[in-house]
Amino acid sequence: MNPIFADLPTTVFEVMSALARETGAVNLGQGFPDDPGPADVRAKAAEAVVEGWNQYPPMMGLPELRRAVAQHYARWQGLDLDPDTEVMVTSGATEALAGALMALIEPGDEVVLFEPMYDAYLPLVRRAGGVPRFVTLTPPHFRITEDALAAAFSPRTKVVLLNNPLNPSATIFPDEDLELLAGFCQRFDAVALCDEVWEHVVFDGRRHRPLMAVPGMRERTVKIGSAGKIFSLTGWKVGFVMAPPHLMRGLAKAHQFLTFTTPPNLQAAVAYGLSKDDTYFEDMRTDFARARDRFAGGLSALGFSVLPSAGTYFLNLDIAPLGESDDVAFCERLVRRHGVAAIPVSAFYAHRPVRTIVRFCFAKRDDTLDRALERLRGLA
Amino acid sequence: MNPIFADLPTTVFEVMSALARETGAVNLGQGFPDDPGPADVRAKAAEAVVEGWNQYPPMMGLPELRRAVAQHYARWQGLDLDPDTEVMVTSGATEALAGALMALIEPGDEVVLFEPMYDAYLPLVRRAGGVPRFVTLTPPHFRITEDALAAAFSPRTKVVLLNNPLNPSATIFPDEDLELLAGFCQRFDAVALCDEVWEHVVFDGRRHRPLMAVPGMRERTVKIGSAGKIFSLTGWKVGFVMAPPHLMRGLAKAHQFLTFTTPPNLQAAVAYGLSKDDTYFEDMRTDFARARDRFAGGLSALGFSVLPSAGTYFLNLDIAPLGESDDVAFCERLVRRHGVAAIPVSAFYAHRPVRTIVRFCFAKRDDTLDRALERLRGLA
Ligand SMILES: CSCCC(=O)C(=O)O
Ligand SMILES: CSCCC(=O)C(=O)O
Repeated sequence: MNPIFADLPTTVFEVMSALARETGAVNLGQGFPDDPGPADVRAKAAEAVVEGWNQYPPMMGLPELRRAVAQHYARWQGLDLDPDTEVMVTSGATEALAGALMALIEPGDEVVLFEPMYDAYLPLVRRAGGVPRFVTLTPPHFRITEDALAAAFSPRTKVVLLNNPLNPSATIFPDEDLELLAGFCQRFDAVALCDEVWEHVVFDGRRHRPLMAVPGMRERTVKIGSAGKIFSLTGWKVGFVMAPPHLMRGLAKAHQFLTFTTPPNLQAAVAYGLSKDDTYFEDMRTDFARARDRFAGGLSALGFSVLPSAGTYFLNLDIAPLGESDDVAFCERLVRRHGVAAIPVSAFYAHRPVRTIVRFCFAKRDDTLDRALERLRGLA
Repeated sequence: MNPIFADLPTTVFEVMSALARETGAVNLGQGFPDDPGPADVRAKAAEAVVEGWNQYPPMMGLPELRRAVAQHYARWQGLDLDPDTEVMVTSGATEALAGALMALIEPGDEVVLFEPMYDAYLPLVRRAGGVPRFVTLTPPHFRITEDALAAAFSPRTKVVLLNNPLNPSATIFPDEDLELLAGFCQRFDAVALCDEVWEHVVFDGRRHRPLMAVPGMRERTVKIGSAGKIFSLTGWKVGFVMAPPHLMRGLAKAHQFLTFTTPPNLQAAVAYGLSKDDTYFEDMRTDFARARDRFAGGLSALGFSVLPSAGTYFLNLDIAPLGESDDVAFCERLVRRHGVAAIPVSAFYAHRPVRTIVRFCFAKRDDTLDRALERLRGLA
């Protein structure tokens, strides 16, 4: 067994969801909405399963979906992508990320990682043969500094892996940070691998700025998106990768060997969904922001110290004011004694963990959030 | 870019399908049926998309599907698998294979490969850090010999990757060969990774014997199956892996990092499909065998030399009697001048190519096969 994978625990998201099922806890751990997702998009998928093509689609994805992806990002983010050579469909953002790392990295290449980071990043980088260099971001602002980048980049830097908006911090990197990072990528000739799956889940009038749109980055950025996140259908596992042709060629090979294709029926439905008019996406943001406010307001009223959430399905509690210094122990107690599952944010650090932040998923129905608040009463 | 992936061409299956679309050729290249697939299974999937859960299913797969898989293999192959610890659902057999190689191999480990082999095997082995050792199998019988195994195995052998029934040869390894291989696996303490996606597509009363059922192999075999192949829904990308718990632990981590989960709606439909009664599976075999006989008979009548097909969607032509010694050039001419796409079998050899065999997919409607035969008239 290769120890890089074999020695790891099951992901905390899965463990917490299982524990929530077992204990009957309200599950605000793993990031998924308890909404069924848009009925019309699901109806399209059903129609495609019954009437459409169920054999291998083209390896790069259905042409109609690749066109819809290109148009969607042109409209929303001003990107100019050629659907034939710069867009590929993958079996979720996870596959896109795994494939990109397998394709971009040669053993010994350095990869700059920002912690907190999604727990798949580090093992994937290691299994691809990459050598991680960490930049540690800390609450409450999770900002990138020039000093931190200078310490992490080297002539061996091949890839920088950035998640923006950032899970679990629920922060969005300001333009200043993106430009700083872009400068380093160019100076060190590194590729930016951008996990931007939360790009549509941004609040309070914010607009996501893709790193690819920062001057100088168009030719050195691989951008990853997720239909599961865009349409609140996290189980569909339809993702996209966007990259300039000279990078896409390698990414396409990795995809060819990792999953080869993605179900055409779900692809067809996502193509339909992406061409919905702006109202759908605006309403989604408004709905999530309302849920965020309900939950944040409730927590504050109970006396908890709530960090701001600018995007993602998540918001964080600072548990230091409660006299807590072990987020894992706190979450264990929370799920077992109080019936609420959350995620200890130290799980997102490989290196210098922050131990006093706990993440909640607020992408839930009002009654679910209210039930959780009820159970949290008296703990602050 | 990592050269192991980046330097490879697009898979011949995709290239030939694209060429067939462009030229209007009858596509007997890439292996997929032109049947829409079982209507009731598709209806189940549609129902699950509309009424069911569209968020992350458990990482290991829906419990109902894992139970259905265990029951299916108990009934059909006499395997005794614990659905909780020995069965996992993946996003197709390709992901299962990629994950298994990533999980099982450490850099420098040797992997025994049998050529002809599916074109993803070698790059995946290489990208995982494995060192390939080839056993070359040759027409018409594609048998494994003791001498060949003795030359390929070494104390550094970690994994043996076997495809049975074998694509593209359309042969099934006899018990004798399986037992020979089992002996080597045990002697050299190697894990057998068995791509058995064609297990249901076997003809003339044959029954597939999984390598896992050969004495001594239960604890050292990883078996891969494919719902896409079982139900003629190749685009669904629902696969399964079966392995003893000590191996499954590592495989599960690889799955966690490669795709994490597989669409729950398709999983639910596959669970339903697997519990169909035996008639469904028997009828499928009968239908494919009938198509095989129609096409083989037609080719023979035209004067071609047809190799026997014991299983898979494929049958092979020996083009040596036509005075041909370059299968690639032959297939190029076939698709461009004669309007029939086929696969040159040399694409399945990394090492010592056989250049006089051409593979056709007969899993097509009668009129499609007849059209191809019409176009092949006069070539033999
Ligand atoms: C793949 S399970 C985790 C989902 C998610 O994005 C999260 O909870 O952070
Ligand atoms: C993944 S495309 C190839 C399908 C297949 O099994 C074949 O044609 O051999």
